[in-house]
Order: sequence, then structure tokens, then C-alpha cells
Amino acid sequence: MRPILTVGSVAFDSVKTPFGEVSRVVAGAATYFSIAASFFTDVRLVGVVGDDFVDEHLAVFAGRRIDLDGLQRVAGETFRWRGEYNFDLNTRETIYTHLNVFEDFRPQIPDSFRSSPFVFLANIHPALQLDVLDQVEAPEFVALDTMNYWIEGTPYELRRVLARVHVLVINDAEARELSGEANLVKAARLIQAMGPERVVIKRGEYGVLMTRDDGFFAVPGLPLEDVYDPTGAGDTFAGGFVGYLAAAPAITDDVVTQAIIAGSTMASFAVEDFGLDRLMALTEPQVKERFREFKRLTHFEAL
Amino acid sequence: MRPILTVGSVAFDSVKTPFGEVSRVVAGAATYFSIAASFFTDVRLVGVVGDDFVDEHLAVFAGRRIDLDGLQRVAGETFRWRGEYNFDLNTRETIYTHLNVFEDFRPQIPDSFRSSPFVFLANIHPALQLDVLDQVEAPEFVALDTMNYWIEGTPYELRRVLARVHVLVINDAEARELSGEANLVKAARLIQAMGPERVVIKRGEYGVLMTRDDGFFAVPGLPLEDVYDPTGAGDTFAGGFVGYLAAAPAITDDVVTQAIIAGSTMASFAVEDFGLDRLMALTEPQVKERFREFKRLTHFEAL
Repeated sequence: MRPILTVGSVAFDSVKTPFGEVSRVVAGAATYFSIAASFFTDVRLVGVVGDDFVDEHLAVFAGRRIDLDGLQRVAGETFRWRGEYNFDLNTRETIYTHLNVFEDFRPQIPDSFRSSPFVFLANIHPALQLDVLDQVEAPEFVALDTMNYWIEGTPYELRRVLARVHVLVINDAEARELSGEANLVKAARLIQAMGPERVVIKRGEYGVLMTRDDGFFAVPGLPLEDVYDPTGAGDTFAGGFVGYLAAAPAITDDVVTQAIIAGSTMASFAVEDFGLDRLMALTEPQVKERFREFKRLTHFEAL
Repeated sequence: MRPILTVGSVAFDSVKTPFGEVSRVVAGAATYFSIAASFFTDVRLVGVVGDDFVDEHLAVFAGRRIDLDGLQRVAGETFRWRGEYNFDLNTRETIYTHLNVFEDFRPQIPDSFRSSPFVFLANIHPALQLDVLDQVEAPEFVALDTMNYWIEGTPYELRRVLARVHVLVINDAEARELSGEANLVKAARLIQAMGPERVVIKRGEYGVLMTRDDGFFAVPGLPLEDVYDPTGAGDTFAGGFVGYLAAAPAITDDVVTQAIIAGSTMASFAVEDFGLDRLMALTEPQVKERFREFKRLTHFEAL
């Protein structure tokens, strides 16, 4: 069981979906990632919040295997985002993004975190992701998230960081944009040529696709009766995925496919309530039971 | 091994995709269905063509287990459709639909077909689907396809036929429209309450979802490097699905999930070339090998 260093946003979100809305709840990529990964292994979080992020907000991390020594608190307001989802939750509109203290975020990796064997670089400026990699000592495994904003705006920096990671975790639209190729099989191969050994493609309610030596591994999304808020599902997936890998004695092909299921499992919970609410109430037996549910969902007898 | 009666369109399609175009090729729901199903069992096709549908067109059925005694040839032109797909093949525009001889189609089930134990009603007017059911003797298994046009235009007739079928095979947008429910889990349960024991939901490149007693079975689409033309994929899926069921000694839960894979297998071939071209060249060993590919795609070790 190896600890994971993660660097990314800690934020306040306001979200409206057809099923309700919440205002100024604790969120952010590094938050969702850390809480999901902490079900499997120790997590070291590096990020920044403002002085409006107080004890009641820090409570979401309490009692979990999350080391907050790398979470800076500075004068000013915490990153805030507001989004609204359409009727089927498949598209959303950003109402505002106030970077606030996140605008000047320069990740400072505490000395005690520098030898972290696992690293997850959440979606931030590729130059900052590179800066983090320069501060850590030869990690065994680095996974990266990014988004269309960096693909379009900072392609050179993004290519430099891609050359240094083992796994890229992105969604299908981003995979198409990054590769300039509409076909996902070809897109994934083109991205692998940029550096990552594996490409993990998130497809929202349709599940996840992962490259491997002999083609792909794929899992559909678990059909859920109650989906309230998809925010954070991708980062929660990444947390379950990287967390499971870090907890395993070795990264075999079987372990990687199980890690995809672990990630899908965590994400399937995240969307069942607003913000972090479902993850806050989640128990380990529930995680194991849902992993088995994915097996029942997808199993068929070979010919 | 039981024969399947199918009733639906036999047509000429003209199709344009980002990868090329074809003009006036043999197509139609009953055509795709029959050719796919004939890999598994005997098929009895009932449909209508014009006098422009000549021996060279009939050749697509030759040497297959397809009985054409129910294919009427009448004076006039065969049903013609033209469609164009967008860059990622996920949406298409119908350029024209000329029903021609199909407009006055009244299915006449030959006496020798009336005791067919399996029936697939392809997408035609629900009143005609009901008329077919009135002409057959207590089939063991009836599956039905339909579309938004009938869901909106003839809801009463559609409800009457739904009450008499075992399986409804539709796409996700149609499932949502038919049930008036955006959530697919709830949509499927509402549709089951209309009659069908099972609902099979096609999701294009994302795969297939099927209800069962304890939740759902789901399979992702096989990631394909070459996708040229999605036309007919849904009917080809249905042909593999119903064909596999009809070929099995009994419809067990294991057999139904394998049938979903058989359907997905056939559909994955159909899209690899224009029109019927890939299915024309397809061999049984290739079908079995791709079935195994679906197993490799989706298999993971239980915890």
C-alpha cells in the first residue's frame, strides 16, 4: 500500500440540476480525488484555499487517510464555480468561475511528500503539473487529468507533461480534441505516442474505456435509478482508480482492470447525491458490494 | 433451433458518411435483420419490393438460411431512403424517404410461416405489427422494434402491440420518449409495465443495456478502428440477438446475456463497411472470434 500525492483544486461549488441545487459546498478536483482514493490508501493533498475555508469545511477530510500538510491557507477567497446541468445531466453550463486564491497557486510540495511513489496531477495548468513533477523524486506511477482549455491554450506545455506520465485520464471529447482524431481507437493510440503508457477515457454515464496491450478494456456505467449531480464524478473515478492501484501489491493487468471498476464504483456513488454528500456517508462494505454489482452487470458466459 | 418470422422493410439506401458514400444499395430493416439472424437459425422474411428489385438485388439473400416465400414483388418502385451522417457518425440527417410500394404494404403471412415460434416485428406501423400477430399462431417469443414516429403518431396502436410482445428493442432516446422519463432505469421499468418482459436499449457506439429480474445486463460497444457506416446496425443487432435466442435449446438468463453479445457482435461487423458489404463477406469463425473479443473487452476478476 503506497501513498498518493495529489495536486489540484479545492473549491466551493454551486450546482443546479433538474433535481435541486446546492450553494457554496466544498468541492474541487483534489477534494473529490482525495476522498475517493482514501478508501484505498493514504493520500497527500496539495492545494490552496482562502481564509473563508474554515474548520466546518475542513471537516470533509476529517477521519480519513488524507494528509493536509500540503493544503495552504492564504488571505482571500477560495476558488468558486457555479454550473447548471440540462435535463438529462449530460451537458452543463458554467455560470461563473472565480479562481480567486487559486489564480496565483504555485504548488509547494512539502519535503515529507517528495518521495511519494504515486502521483495524481488533477486538472491544472500543465506548467504547474510539470513544476510538481520537478519537485518529486522519481515516482513509480504518475497519472494526469487535463481539459479542453489546456489542450487548446497550452499545447506545448501539455505535451511536455504528457511525455512524463504513465496514465492520462480524460473524457472522450478531450481525447478526440487532443489527438485531432474522431475515432477513439486511433485517438488513444495517437495519445499513447505522446507518452502515456495507458489512456483511460471517461464517457460519463456510458462508462470507461482503457487501452491495453491487446486492445481495450471497457466497462459500461452502472444504470442508476437516482442521479442527482454529476459534478466531481470524473475526479472521484480517478481517486478510486489510482487508489486501487496504489493499494495493490503490484500493477498487473488484472489489477488495472479491477482498478477501473473501483473507480467506476466510486463515481457511481458520487452522482447519487449533491456535492460530496453521498461520499461522506459511504462505507467500505457498500463499496465492495457495488464492485460486485459491476460484475453482475457485465458478466456473461464465454462460448 | 427454431425458425424466426420477420416482417419489415426491404429497401434501397443511399448513404453518405465522412468516409465515403454509396448509392441505391440493398438495405432495409428486415434485410439487415434476416442476414444477421441467418448466421444462427432459419429466417422467414415477409416484406415487399418493387419491380426494380431484380435478381442482382436478391443475390444478397442467396445461399443463406432465408426463406423468401413471403417477399412480395409488386409493380412500382422499392422503398428508398437517403441519409447523411455527421463527422462522428452519432447523428444523421434523412435527405429523403420515398415509401413507394412500401406505402401500401399489408403483410401477408404465408400459411407455411404461420406457426413460426419466433417473431421479430421490425419498425413498421404498429397497426401492421398487430395485423402480423393476428396472423400467427401463439408464437413462443415476439420481439418488437419501433421508432419516435410511431411513439408520437400512433401511441394507442403502439400500446396495443406492446401488450403482446416479450421483448422491446429500442434506442435510448426512444426509451425516454416512450416512457416520458429521462432516467433509463425508471424508463425501462415503465416500459415493462406496458407489456414486454424485457427491454433491450441500444446505445449506438456505447453498447447495449438489457433489463433483467435483478437489475440490468450491460455491454459496451467494441471499440472499432474502422467505422464506415452505422446504417442497419440496430437491425443487425436485433438479428444476432433474436437469432441466438432461437438457436438455443432454452432461453435461460445465461443464454439471454450471450444473445446480447451475439447481437453486439453482428452489429460491430455491420458498421465496418458500407451497407451490407461487411456482412456479405462475414464467416462463422469470424463471428465466434469476435464474440470472444467481447469477453476479453469486458472481463475482470471478481474481488
